[in-house]
Amino acid sequence: MIHITRRERFNAAHRLFREDYTDEQNLDVFGKCSNPNWHGHNYHLFVTVKGDINKDTGFLVNLKDLSRIINDYVIEHVDHKNINLEVEFMKGKLASTENLAIAIWNQLEEPVSELGAQLHKIKLFESENNFVEYYGE
Amino acid sequence: MIHITRRERFNAAHRLFREDYTDEQNLDVFGKCSNPNWHGHNYHLFVTVKGDINKDTGFLVNLKDLSRIINDYVIEHVDHKNINLEVEFMKGKLASTENLAIAIWNQLEEPVSELGAQLHKIKLFESENNFVEYYGE
Amino acid sequence: MIHITRRERFNAAHRLFREDYTDEQNLDVFGKCSNPNWHGHNYHLFVTVKGDINKDTGFLVNLKDLSRIINDYVIEHVDHKNINLEVEFMKGKLASTENLAIAIWNQLEEPVSELGAQLHKIKLFESENNFVEYYGE
Amino acid sequence: MIHITRRERFNAAHRLFREDYTDEQNLDVFGKCSNPNWHGHNYHLFVTVKGDINKDTGFLVNLKDLSRIINDYVIEHVDHKNINLEVEFMKGKLASTENLAIAIWNQLEEPVSELGAQLHKIKLFESENNFVEYYGE
Amino acid sequence: MIHITRRERFNAAHRLFREDYTDEQNLDVFGKCSNPNWHGHNYHLFVTVKGDINKDTGFLVNLKDLSRIINDYVIEHVDHKNINLEVEFMKGKLASTENLAIAIWNQLEEPVSELGAQLHKIKLFESENNFVEYYGE
Amino acid sequence: MIHITRRERFNAAHRLFREDYTDEQNLDVFGKCSNPNWHGHNYHLFVTVKGDINKDTGFLVNLKDLSRIINDYVIEHVDHKNINLEVEFMKGKLASTENLAIAIWNQLEEPVSELGAQLHKIKLFESENNFVEYYGE
Repeated sequence: MIHITRRERFNAAHRLFREDYTDEQNLDVFGKCSNPNWHGHNYHLFVTVKGDINKDTGFLVNLKDLSRIINDYVIEHVDHKNINLEVEFMKGKLASTENLAIAIWNQLEEPVSELGAQLHKIKLFESENNFVEYYGE
Repeated sequence: MIHITRRERFNAAHRLFREDYTDEQNLDVFGKCSNPNWHGHNYHLFVTVKGDINKDTGFLVNLKDLSRIINDYVIEHVDHKNINLEVEFMKGKLASTENLAIAIWNQLEEPVSELGAQLHKIKLFESENNFVEYYGE
Repeated sequence: MIHITRRERFNAAHRLFREDYTDEQNLDVFGKCSNPNWHGHNYHLFVTVKGDINKDTGFLVNLKDLSRIINDYVIEHVDHKNINLEVEFMKGKLASTENLAIAIWNQLEEPVSELGAQLHKIKLFESENNFVEYYGE
Repeated sequence: MIHITRRERFNAAHRLFREDYTDEQNLDVFGKCSNPNWHGHNYHLFVTVKGDINKDTGFLVNLKDLSRIINDYVIEHVDHKNINLEVEFMKGKLASTENLAIAIWNQLEEPVSELGAQLHKIKLFESENNFVEYYGE
Repeated sequence: MIHITRRERFNAAHRLFREDYTDEQNLDVFGKCSNPNWHGHNYHLFVTVKGDINKDTGFLVNLKDLSRIINDYVIEHVDHKNINLEVEFMKGKLASTENLAIAIWNQLEEPVSELGAQLHKIKLFESENNFVEYYGE
Repeated sequence: MIHITRRERFNAAHRLFREDYTDEQNLDVFGKCSNPNWHGHNYHLFVTVKGDINKDTGFLVNLKDLSRIINDYVIEHVDHKNINLEVEFMKGKLASTENLAIAIWNQLEEPVSELGAQLHKIKLFESENNFVEYYGE
């Protein structure tokens, strides 16, 4: 059993708020992250998969394939986008890093298994000081 | 003559576009950075000042003072903001990293000189792969 | 179940030594880290907490609260301090990174649980080449 | 139980290929990594060991000893070497990062136990975007 | 006048040696970098260009264009290559980081000027501890 | 003319204070950096030298020689030391990063010239947010 991790990056705008709150309530709960005019981040995404090494190639998975999947199922949907307004797989969810990490897991779990590996962890940095990890349960 | 640099960080949303262009023209010139729904970055700002060391303190400037000035004149205006919509000192300017670096220079030149030093360089990272430097002329 | 991590930093002096050893014995066991005139580090502290996401906020914990707790219970006690001489929660302990990580766990376990989360890991970097992890048992 | 990690680095050349494949087959499976003229990397190796703290020293292990072991059993064998041609413990194996991480585990497991600790993880970065982790099973 | 920098990366094998030296002489002068079986690096290349901001776009140059030029004139020639054997613009030169930085300057000077900017600096990291800078004269 | 930079690191304790000030005055001017019980840092030192490439070697200087000089004239004097109490070349000076950078320049200028290069810059990081640069005048 080996674990391999691929890093990809995306830049996006978002806002933390609830539609059923007033601006004052949102400011109280979410602070400056609730700014109605949005703010944004350079997100750093680390996708870890696990499984057995293919004896023919010495690989768990070909990293080109893993990178392609992450780009097809995640990066193209979020890079240079507004997470609240434009990301289908975040519709109806608060645009927190926690929820984003879980949604990315759900996007990747099946395509990773089709590569012959198992998704192990989503690690998502919002800044150099804050990151979230999700293991699928 | 010594140079000293202070790093501060801010997160903001922006969009590259011209009001006198159609969305198609904006997309053609600015690519995905023209997304009408915004995107964003973790900006890393390095402010370099220069001058002579104060013999009484061994300091060029007290870094607490330099940090306070950068926060008062720059960070509070841009952090968790929309650069196009909310930043007074960027009004009427294209929200490129180049223009932002120059505007930050203009915000800081006078307060730095009041600290007894001279502003030398603004270095502004938009991502780990891209940064701009401005020396005031 | 989600994990979220907050990084905080502090600068401190310390010395590795035993009072019941001579300077020669301390030098033999602890090397240059036993210097009686102290040395110091920029410590980087990563605090990981885990738990369920609050459906109302999309947060596990508000990172402002987590940051405040880390500052109140750890950073204010160690930043710009001498770990051997001035840190109440390290009194009577060898000032190794291992012991410091465990003491930080003990400082944070209860306040983190009062936030509604569970402390999962203390990761403490002494330098870019050395770090310690503690999971509470 | 505490975990402590030491980082060491090495620079090496390698090539991903199978002798029983033609150059075309190798290119097809391994892409540009199969270049017959080799390419190379700055590998970053993180070795994590675990165990109980020695009450006399406050250490799990003396990091000087851990560093010496990593250098003796790994770095001297791979640094500024060709992994395919010159590394005894990689003979007969595909020079993938996965296989290299496992071989490094096998080199270090016994000497670490002789230090009084237990090897916990080999984490090997091939680049800032790709790394492998191996836990010994 | 503004400066803008784009980072690109490449992985390559190389060897420091002179054909007119014996292996012993090469070892004496170039140390382990003279290994006849090659070694390699993850090179980090920072290309800085300077000039005036285009008032229509707010750009000095479009970073997509700058990135494309660096890839066409440099990265495609060196990435996953052997610098001594396969890089046309290094033929007949010692494969030192110094010579490589100068050769990269010569590759980029003209295409950068065709973009409407002026090449200012090539900064080339061989490792986190070593880098070379070249300003064209 | 080429520039080449070598990074070395050291850990040290220091204190910012004047003997002719009371503790209150020192606290007022130097803040928590004046703690009489010391604090410390992981300093990162970047030494840049310049000159012409030696045609026989492709080197400006052999980086092993440059590293040896930095270690002999600087690192051995400051690593795991108390800068105020134990560093001969800082005697009688305020232990600020500015003064330390200048003193390091004075230690290195002559030995670098004996290597056949010219010292160009001392860049000294006290933390990831603060650094000083000195060009010798």
